[in-house]
Amino acid sequence: MSITAIRYQPGLLELLDQRLLPEREVWLQLRDGAAAADAIRDMVVRGAPAIAITAAYGLALAVRGGEDRAATRARLMASRPTAVNLRWALERLDAIPDAAVEAEAVAIHEEDLTINRALGEVGAAVLPPGGIYTHCNTGALATGGWGTALGVIRAIAASGRPVSVYAGETRPYLQGARLTAWELWKEGIDCTLVPDSAAGAAMASGRVASVIVGADRVAANGDTANKIGTYNLAVLARHHGLPFYVAVPTSTLDPRCPSGADIPIEERSADELRAFRGHAIAPADVGVWNPAFDVTPAALITGWITENGLWTPPGS
Amino acid sequence: MSITAIRYQPGLLELLDQRLLPEREVWLQLRDGAAAADAIRDMVVRGAPAIAITAAYGLALAVRGGEDRAATRARLMASRPTAVNLRWALERLDAIPDAAVEAEAVAIHEEDLTINRALGEVGAAVLPPGGIYTHCNTGALATGGWGTALGVIRAIAASGRPVSVYAGETRPYLQGARLTAWELWKEGIDCTLVPDSAAGAAMASGRVASVIVGADRVAANGDTANKIGTYNLAVLARHHGLPFYVAVPTSTLDPRCPSGADIPIEERSADELRAFRGHAIAPADVGVWNPAFDVTPAALITGWITENGLWTPPGS
Repeated sequence: MSITAIRYQPGLLELLDQRLLPEREVWLQLRDGAAAADAIRDMVVRGAPAIAITAAYGLALAVRGGEDRAATRARLMASRPTAVNLRWALERLDAIPDAAVEAEAVAIHEEDLTINRALGEVGAAVLPPGGIYTHCNTGALATGGWGTALGVIRAIAASGRPVSVYAGETRPYLQGARLTAWELWKEGIDCTLVPDSAAGAAMASGRVASVIVGADRVAANGDTANKIGTYNLAVLARHHGLPFYVAVPTSTLDPRCPSGADIPIEERSADELRAFRGHAIAPADVGVWNPAFDVTPAALITGWITENGLWTPPGS
Repeated sequence: MSITAIRYQPGLLELLDQRLLPEREVWLQLRDGAAAADAIRDMVVRGAPAIAITAAYGLALAVRGGEDRAATRARLMASRPTAVNLRWALERLDAIPDAAVEAEAVAIHEEDLTINRALGEVGAAVLPPGGIYTHCNTGALATGGWGTALGVIRAIAASGRPVSVYAGETRPYLQGARLTAWELWKEGIDCTLVPDSAAGAAMASGRVASVIVGADRVAANGDTANKIGTYNLAVLARHHGLPFYVAVPTSTLDPRCPSGADIPIEERSADELRAFRGHAIAPADVGVWNPAFDVTPAALITGWITENGLWTPPGS
C-alpha cells in the first residue's frame, strides 16, 4: 500500500491533486469543509470511495473549525451528484455528535481500506485467468487505498498469479492513462494502455479474458452507474462472451434507488472536450455532450464483487 | 466546397498540416516525392482518399524533378500500410508514361471529388431521419474535398433535411474533435462532439438513429478496416438495432484481399498515448497498444455506400 491520495491530521486535510498526475505530484492543504467540497467538485479527488472519505474529513474540519455543520453538510452533499458513497458517508455522520465526527471520519477511511482488501480477495477468486480489461481508475487513488476493481487486480498479483492488465485511457479526464497506468507502473504490475476505442479490437484479438470495473452507484435492481464508457465495455464483453464484473463496497449499493433510470447523471463542462492543457482540440464553441457516467443495465453484468461476497439484486 | 487540404501546381504540392488543426492553419510546401511520402507517414495528411491523391501528386513531383520513379513509388507505397487507395492510385499511375503522370494525378484528384458527390447522394437516400453518429474524419480534409461518410452528411444537409451529427473524438489523434467538428462547425451543420466512450450512452438515450463511417480497405468478403473504434461502434449499433453504414469510393474495395484477416493493421507510436502536445499523460515507459485501425466483420455492416450505389460482397 505505497500510494495514498488522502492524508488527514486534526485540522488539516491533504489531497494529492489528481488533475496534475502524472506530470506533477502536488499536495493541496485544506483547512475547512468548503474547501473539501470544492476539491470534490473540481476533481482534485475522484472515485466514489475517495469522495466519501474526503467528505467525511471535510465535515470533520467543519466541526473542528466551528462552521455551520448543516451548511457544510449541504455543500458537501451537492459537490457531485452521481456517486452514492458521498451520501452514505454524510448520512452515517448525521448520527455522530460533534465531538466524535473526526474519529468517525478516520474510521470511515480505515474501514474503506479493510473493505477493499476483502473485496479484492472475493474478486481474485472469481476472475478467470487471462488478460483483464479495466476502465477509469479504481485503485488506491480512488479509494482509501488499495482499490476496488484495481484492488481485485492487486489481490491477484499479490497471490502470485500472472496478471496482464489492459487499461483504457478514459477520456476526457484520462484517469486510465494518468492514474491507473501510473499506479500499476509504480508497483510493477504488467499494464498495457489502450485508447478507449480499442476495447473491441482487444477483445476480438483474444488479449482480454474478462472485464472488471468499479461503480459510482448500483441501483436496487442492479443497474450500475459508472464512468462514461463502462456501458460500451459491457456491450462489447457480452458480444465476445466475456465475463463483466463490477467491484464495489456495499456502500455503493443504493437500495433506495429502484433502477438506473433513477440515478442522476452528472454532465461536466464542454471545455473538457474542447481543450487540453490550454491547447484547443476542437472549435471553441462546438456543441459537446459530456456525461461523466453512463448506466449499464443489470442484465449485462456477470456479477457484483463486494466485501461480503458476490451480491445479486434482490429478487433476481 | 469551401475546405480543401491539398493544393497542387506544377512542381509544388501544398498540404494543410492536419496535425495542427484547429489551433493553427499551416500550409506545408512539398517539392519532391520523398517529402510527400514523409507527409503521409507523419500524418500531415490522412484519410484514405486524401492519401491516394497526395501519393499521386508525390509521384508527379518525382517525375517532374527527375527522381528515380521506381524508388519514389516504393517509398510512397510503404508510407502507410492499411489504406488500399494508396496502392490503387500508384498502380493506376504505373500504366501512365512520365509525360502524363501530372495530368493523371490531377484527374485522380478531380475524380475523387466527383465520386464523393455521387456517393453522397446514394447515402442521403438510405440514411434514416434522426441523429447520425460518425467517427474519425471522412470529410473534405480526408478526401479531395466533400468527403465520404461526411459527404453523405453534407448531401443530406444540402438537400434541406435537418441534420444532427454526433462526432466521436477519435483518440488518440482526435480527428473527430479537431477535424470533423471543425469542418461541420465551419459550414454551420449541427454537430455535437462526444468522447468515444459515450457512443453507447448516446445510442441508448435515443439521440442516434444511424451510424456512418468511412473505410481504409474493404476486403472481398466485406470485412472492413477503418479507424480504431469503428468495430466498437458496429457492435454497439447492432446491440441497439441501429443501421451501420460504410461510405467508400470503389477504390477502397480490395478484391485481392479475401477477408479482414488479410488486411495489414498499422500500429503507431506508443508516444501518441503517453503525451499530448508535450504534456505527459501517462508514465513515460508504460506499455501501449496503439493500433491505428480495426476490422469490422461484414456481418455487422448494414451496407456499403459507393459512387455506384450500394455494394454487396460478391456471393453474399
